[in-house]
Amino acid sequence: MRQANLPLCKEHFVSWFERRVERTVRRYKMIAPGDKVLVAVSGGKDSLALLCALRRLSERMGFELAALTLDLGIKGNSYSDESVKMARGGAKALGVEHYVVSIEERYGFTLDEAVEVARRPPCSLCGLLKRYALTDVARELGFDVLATGHTLDDVARFLLASYLSASIQELIRLTPVSPSELPGVPRRVKPFYESLEEHIELYANIMGLKYMRDGCPYARTAPTDRFRSFLDQVEAESPGMKHMMVRGYVKHIRPALISGLGTKIKPARPCSKCGLPSSGEVCSFCRLRSRILRALGKA
Amino acid sequence: MRQANLPLCKEHFVSWFERRVERTVRRYKMIAPGDKVLVAVSGGKDSLALLCALRRLSERMGFELAALTLDLGIKGNSYSDESVKMARGGAKALGVEHYVVSIEERYGFTLDEAVEVARRPPCSLCGLLKRYALTDVARELGFDVLATGHTLDDVARFLLASYLSASIQELIRLTPVSPSELPGVPRRVKPFYESLEEHIELYANIMGLKYMRDGCPYARTAPTDRFRSFLDQVEAESPGMKHMMVRGYVKHIRPALISGLGTKIKPARPCSKCGLPSSGEVCSFCRLRSRILRALGKA
Repeated sequence: MRQANLPLCKEHFVSWFERRVERTVRRYKMIAPGDKVLVAVSGGKDSLALLCALRRLSERMGFELAALTLDLGIKGNSYSDESVKMARGGAKALGVEHYVVSIEERYGFTLDEAVEVARRPPCSLCGLLKRYALTDVARELGFDVLATGHTLDDVARFLLASYLSASIQELIRLTPVSPSELPGVPRRVKPFYESLEEHIELYANIMGLKYMRDGCPYARTAPTDRFRSFLDQVEAESPGMKHMMVRGYVKHIRPALISGLGTKIKPARPCSKCGLPSSGEVCSFCRLRSRILRALGKA
Repeated sequence: MRQANLPLCKEHFVSWFERRVERTVRRYKMIAPGDKVLVAVSGGKDSLALLCALRRLSERMGFELAALTLDLGIKGNSYSDESVKMARGGAKALGVEHYVVSIEERYGFTLDEAVEVARRPPCSLCGLLKRYALTDVARELGFDVLATGHTLDDVARFLLASYLSASIQELIRLTPVSPSELPGVPRRVKPFYESLEEHIELYANIMGLKYMRDGCPYARTAPTDRFRSFLDQVEAESPGMKHMMVRGYVKHIRPALISGLGTKIKPARPCSKCGLPSSGEVCSFCRLRSRILRALGKA
């Protein structure tokens, strides 16, 4: 087993890793004692490792924990069926209550159908769909906090993409904590904001977690692979670079941008169709959903 | 001869290229009629192409033009000797007055000596030295404007490096125009801020310019090659990306940062030793110079 260049034995690695997650949770005030926390679990290593780490932290910090898995309806490689199975097994092994919500039952279409009719890259569609559905379900179930398994590597990659496209609106969103925008809507947190994927994988393996090893069949079309390998190479040459990039963004760049944008940042208002936070009259998910249902002849 | 994917004949390419440079010069108010403009010419394709394009623009816009070459004292591959020769030939062919200033005569040490005694990467040393010396000489000769051959590719690469290191002070400096910070100090401009190197090279070749083809012997140690190849790959996949990245920075990101930083940006004051703009009591060049001269036993 790789030791991730850390001169630590298994037990010390686990406690080092979990202490780092706890530090991130406390540093950014992600979770308060008594909070009801819902963890988005895809069945992959990052989200199952997050569920495991938060399970152990929940006892020390005193918050409630449950897991939610979206059945996206991806047929290729039985991807969604396998994901749900893995997530269910993981939650059971950790003794965490587990919700499974079918996108098709809830919104009337599968991701496969959306990919077919919407003229948009699959990963962008899926991102919008998951972000919306997780918040939607977490609100309905009355959770205070929605935790996702976004890693330091994910954040660095999104940051890089936003810097290249110079899209300030995306840039200011890449925060460890997104506060609740409307009453009843949970705040979203990323407890792995300061954790590298290589350490998360090591942790998942040491803890004996069983996770999906196959990637999503759509991911092959993602253009972010180049970003990933570039950042991995720079990190290999200058260890700590990803951390410096993300930490510098949170500490220096984002605050300056936010203060500079001032009143140009519009607060969210409730979507007139679904009530979730929106920048316009109808939120982007509801607009997308109408388009998809019309194209499928279901509306 | 490559046609840079533009469906243009040579004559139309030249006028398209020069119009773009003129648009950049006017868009960012780099040069006003009557200005005395000094072009920094290293002898490479970018700076000689800049001298050529500005030579032709100077007639239409009515500004004065001269060229300045620094003899840095790099012995490897007779690099500095060749550079000065190329620059001299280019300026002569274009009928532009040409100044050559020896770093050793002016400041008491060569770049080779500086590299030997200063514990700093050669490219960073050279950057500081050139930036300082060009401004210093341009001020002494009474020029209003100092023009450098920084390209769109250069700016994109510096931007990327500054985003990764999250160094806000470097980030806000990557402007097309740096206004004069103190009376008598020229403003610095980058007329190739919106021009790609592949187009500059094509222009230099069509115009029959003779330029240095060998790179600097120190450049092999530069870590920016990875940045260069990453950006080139992304540009190849998404043509226009470098332009979008740099334009988005100038239009959106930098203004927000500047307004957000507010009073945290300290105006420059004259260095107590040399009088050029400095952030502290003594400027970083004068501090470096003292250190180098002491280490060389010359002070």
